[in-house]
Amino acid sequence: MNEWAYSAEERAAIYRAIAERRDMRHFSGGEIAPELLTRLLQAAHQAPSVGLMQPWRFLRITRPALREAIAGLVEEERLLTADALGERRDDFLRLKVEGVRDCAELLVAALKDGREAHVFGRRTLPEMDLASLSCAIQNLWLAARAEGLGMGWVSLFDPQRLADLLGMPAGAKPVAILCLGPVPAFYPEPMLVGEGWTQAQPLEAMLFGNQWGERP
Amino acid sequence: MNEWAYSAEERAAIYRAIAERRDMRHFSGGEIAPELLTRLLQAAHQAPSVGLMQPWRFLRITRPALREAIAGLVEEERLLTADALGERRDDFLRLKVEGVRDCAELLVAALKDGREAHVFGRRTLPEMDLASLSCAIQNLWLAARAEGLGMGWVSLFDPQRLADLLGMPAGAKPVAILCLGPVPAFYPEPMLVGEGWTQAQPLEAMLFGNQWGERP
Repeated sequence: MNEWAYSAEERAAIYRAIAERRDMRHFSGGEIAPELLTRLLQAAHQAPSVGLMQPWRFLRITRPALREAIAGLVEEERLLTADALGERRDDFLRLKVEGVRDCAELLVAALKDGREAHVFGRRTLPEMDLASLSCAIQNLWLAARAEGLGMGWVSLFDPQRLADLLGMPAGAKPVAILCLGPVPAFYPEPMLVGEGWTQAQPLEAMLFGNQWGERP
Repeated sequence: MNEWAYSAEERAAIYRAIAERRDMRHFSGGEIAPELLTRLLQAAHQAPSVGLMQPWRFLRITRPALREAIAGLVEEERLLTADALGERRDDFLRLKVEGVRDCAELLVAALKDGREAHVFGRRTLPEMDLASLSCAIQNLWLAARAEGLGMGWVSLFDPQRLADLLGMPAGAKPVAILCLGPVPAFYPEPMLVGEGWTQAQPLEAMLFGNQWGERP
């Protein structure tokens, strides 16, 4: 403990949100009040960004025809991914991999255009703008969980075709279709574990000391 | 409000951590108790990952000579970045951009090797493993803030040279040098704002409705 630490209750709340956040695929429609949606986006916007470039852009999809077109893109990629998975094709096709039509709010998160002008912290690692956007999405995810709302990050789409659909300029890039809204229940464990797709590995398997492969 | 929402106090704690998290460069040495460090890494490990591939690997640097070598890599890149910034070179060189020697714990976060075997959610967007690792780092960041510890994400390094220094196999890639530990104080605003390097843009500038450039 130190003078900057939060209270035990505050710390417990943060660890609770981290532990209970789930990548949701099952939504129950409904809606999100505008002030709540703004609060969630403001949480995203408070993320760190390399060189303070704030590379995140969020598109709120409200037109039904556009939502339908996005669902179509995801469906096309779902089938192509199934084929690429080979012997696990049929298992994959049984999974629910998106909630594009069922969620209360559909957002697309994208990287800005003109990114090459920013070299602060990106000269050797240009992909750090994606890292910043990802931190913003994780903020949104945790805040949504605390508000009792589910979120799903869908990456099953062709980015260029989604960019074209949304009128993005050259250099901008969509990286997430975010399904957001009320859910019937939160998965007690990651859906891919619950569905028997795969098992989670323990933290110990991810930790090294000094050199790759050495015990910490 | 709905049945899954947290209490007002819990929600406030989460928004507090999101708002008060800072990318820190100033540390006051000290140490982190082993069980606290494990708790923070466990928070990172509870992040979402595409296809549950859990691509994150963390190296805890405890050898002084290795920490010094990492500081040297960062210093080399700091000078190269300064040159690449052109007319802002001297302003950049006045900024403190890392706390590698001053922080209690030095971690390197990296992507796993053998990543190409995972196509679930990555067929068209292979960089989604970096997105997952970034969510893990954001979890760690928020938990650290709640514990009263600062964290800085340093991306000023040549990734191949750092990979070589840490004995990483082909295909693995370091993406963050994480400085973690007690700080004299948390910046009231992002350090780059406080130092007059740049201004933050408001959320409104990042939001579109349906099409890029359209008002939400």
